[in-house]
Amino acid sequence: MEKISVDIALVKQLQQLLEQNDDEQLQRLLDEMYPQDIAEILDRMKADEARHIMHLVDKEKAIKVLVEMEENVRENFLSSYSVKEIADEFIQNMDSDDAAYVLNNFSVKDKEDVISNLSDIEFASSLLSLLNYEEYTAGSLMAVELVKANINWSVSQCIEEIRRQAENVENIYVVYVVDDFERLTGIITLKNLILSNPTAHISDVYNDEVISVSTSTDSEEIANLFKKYDLVVLPVVNALGQLVGRITVDDVVEVIKEEANEDYQLMSGITEDVDSSDKVWVLSRARLPWLLIGLMGGVASSRFIEIYEEQLRIHPEMAFFMPLIAAMGGNAGVQSSAIVVQGLANNTLGTKNILPKIWKELRVGLLNGLICSLLLLGYNIAFSNSMNLSMTVSIALISVIVFATVLGTFIPLVLNKMKIDPAIATGPFITTTNDLLGLVVYFALGHLLYNVF
Amino acid sequence: MEKISVDIALVKQLQQLLEQNDDEQLQRLLDEMYPQDIAEILDRMKADEARHIMHLVDKEKAIKVLVEMEENVRENFLSSYSVKEIADEFIQNMDSDDAAYVLNNFSVKDKEDVISNLSDIEFASSLLSLLNYEEYTAGSLMAVELVKANINWSVSQCIEEIRRQAENVENIYVVYVVDDFERLTGIITLKNLILSNPTAHISDVYNDEVISVSTSTDSEEIANLFKKYDLVVLPVVNALGQLVGRITVDDVVEVIKEEANEDYQLMSGITEDVDSSDKVWVLSRARLPWLLIGLMGGVASSRFIEIYEEQLRIHPEMAFFMPLIAAMGGNAGVQSSAIVVQGLANNTLGTKNILPKIWKELRVGLLNGLICSLLLLGYNIAFSNSMNLSMTVSIALISVIVFATVLGTFIPLVLNKMKIDPAIATGPFITTTNDLLGLVVYFALGHLLYNVF
Repeated sequence: MEKISVDIALVKQLQQLLEQNDDEQLQRLLDEMYPQDIAEILDRMKADEARHIMHLVDKEKAIKVLVEMEENVRENFLSSYSVKEIADEFIQNMDSDDAAYVLNNFSVKDKEDVISNLSDIEFASSLLSLLNYEEYTAGSLMAVELVKANINWSVSQCIEEIRRQAENVENIYVVYVVDDFERLTGIITLKNLILSNPTAHISDVYNDEVISVSTSTDSEEIANLFKKYDLVVLPVVNALGQLVGRITVDDVVEVIKEEANEDYQLMSGITEDVDSSDKVWVLSRARLPWLLIGLMGGVASSRFIEIYEEQLRIHPEMAFFMPLIAAMGGNAGVQSSAIVVQGLANNTLGTKNILPKIWKELRVGLLNGLICSLLLLGYNIAFSNSMNLSMTVSIALISVIVFATVLGTFIPLVLNKMKIDPAIATGPFITTTNDLLGLVVYFALGHLLYNVF
Repeated sequence: MEKISVDIALVKQLQQLLEQNDDEQLQRLLDEMYPQDIAEILDRMKADEARHIMHLVDKEKAIKVLVEMEENVRENFLSSYSVKEIADEFIQNMDSDDAAYVLNNFSVKDKEDVISNLSDIEFASSLLSLLNYEEYTAGSLMAVELVKANINWSVSQCIEEIRRQAENVENIYVVYVVDDFERLTGIITLKNLILSNPTAHISDVYNDEVISVSTSTDSEEIANLFKKYDLVVLPVVNALGQLVGRITVDDVVEVIKEEANEDYQLMSGITEDVDSSDKVWVLSRARLPWLLIGLMGGVASSRFIEIYEEQLRIHPEMAFFMPLIAAMGGNAGVQSSAIVVQGLANNTLGTKNILPKIWKELRVGLLNGLICSLLLLGYNIAFSNSMNLSMTVSIALISVIVFATVLGTFIPLVLNKMKIDPAIATGPFITTTNDLLGLVVYFALGHLLYNVF
């Protein structure tokens, strides 16, 4: 099985074979492909083409393809099956975490219908409990399939148990050791199991150092544990300390990816998780809130500038540099807040002792502000703008950069204290605030300085 | 061993024990802690305190602590050791990828000195070759420690080999199967090994489906393979197809994290990888380039507005809405480019057929622009601004939002075609461009409409 790169040529080739009804050749091609690649191709095909292809894919692989498909493609595909068929042919054969993931997109009624049609009652009841956990918790991420051994067993008994469960659990990284009350007490790696004497007791060879989480642990905290302790798999226990499931690193990679996407969208002023294939009005709705906040900020600044209408009539040149001042405030503010937000997200930033941080940012702001305003002063003098205007613009610029830099540090720290996601501060919020702030400083200074120089 | 949460109280407790010279109690505490937690604490301590603590940590754990420390803390710590000691006591006992990672921060001379002092020549030569691989390639990420078995061996021979190598390789997920020329031909999982008859041949039980990369494969591509195929470990082969190393998922999680950070910084106009603990001038230098580009944009807009000086003198109210128009252009542009950049990064966006995408964004822009400009028109009429101004501002606003939306889609697609990281487009670049664009539209329209209404 070679990893085939999914490209337009391959999609075209498959479509051609579909048209020619060359099922034999199609099947040969599909046998060579990974489920993830087949899913990627089906995402780009029409519903009937996808259905035809799925029929040609080997049963076990088809189930993996189904899990990997995009949500709407899967929905479309499943819509031609009865609830009974969905339960028997697909859900029944999935890992519990995958089954829960697929069912989560069903309506409450369909969900219950499918589960009540499952022939394996034990599996059905695990699924029910998995579906009850809140989203973004350990309970919603875990699978119930795992291999566990009682601490009083021998190594050979443990190997026998692995043999028994081998069919259900695809990747066994470790065997969990539990006591008579099913409470997690340690782990034993497959390596240790292979190297141990078969007659030895688990209690002699197991490792009692095990990091675990409870079913209610937040997904972000779980991701941090995986990152920090280089984990591959993490056991989940209930309130009694009993082993109820395990989370594997692939699910966590998904969480890390989603988190990064979320921050990215927050930062660009998009309030819903959208992608470019969504409908126009969904895309529009996701963006509108921040545009409206920007609009309010703009209206506020217009009210403010109005105060200086007379000054603008006499010195219309004041208006020339308004966009420069506003934009520079926005840029400097976003830069500082980005560094703070990142530090908070990576836990490299203590949240105590805010003052030294503000003081440091103040110096960064002063340095950058000084460089920018001196350059601007040089430009203005060279292009013979009036001394009044040149001085006003440069003094306003350095003040705005310093203010924006300090505010950009302060706001995310305060938001974090208030338990609001600080990433919001790097988005249009800080741009809007700093735009307005910049203008206030600019006009106040202009009013003052025009009477001085 | 309990996972102890690292907080200020714990650091204080350790410092107190240090002052009291209570090594016994200290050691007891340290024995209970994970290396990652000890490293986190040492990062917050003074150099002499850190050294004292490291002496109390068990040797094997101390090596892991050293790898997990922050770069400057490690440098400080190692500065009190001779090159010979660094080689013998630390580097020699590390995994090859960790050793290469630590040595990478040494000067060329120190690096060579340490390597030539290693007593294990085989390890030294692997290290030399690892250090020669380019950064951000499979070669620089991989470790050479792995367990491999010849395809002609029996299962029991393979288990013997695991026993032999068990000390060197901490986490064995799979055994790689190679032919007589050391070429990778497949894998066998530990589970299969346990379940197989010891007298069976590897060739009968191994799996010839294996995804591998070459030493020169880019780290971003590697991260995508791990994400897509839910991998835990990935073998690396040289140009001849010979197995030379393996990459584990923890290193890839690091890559994914770094990538997200990079995008985030690009987007906020920071050009170097900095964090809040860096020196003032480093922080300043990382931010200055985009501030200067913003400054140039601002100067350009001032030159442009100057053209309309006379109009501003007669109608200073035109200036009131300048910041609103500029800011809304910036916001709308960043929103569209963020969606495109994300689509490109996640490979969910084809790069062919740009026109339908632009057309869709055009409709989103029209919809949002219409809503915003109608609201603004309502406001302006309610607060009895002149009809001239009200109409100009609203027509300018919808035009700017539409232009900015389309440009925000177009620019990242073009940058991507030019092999430039499109994430740059969501940063100050698009804000600056759209600020300027917004003003051009606004004044051009204003000039026109003031003669109409």
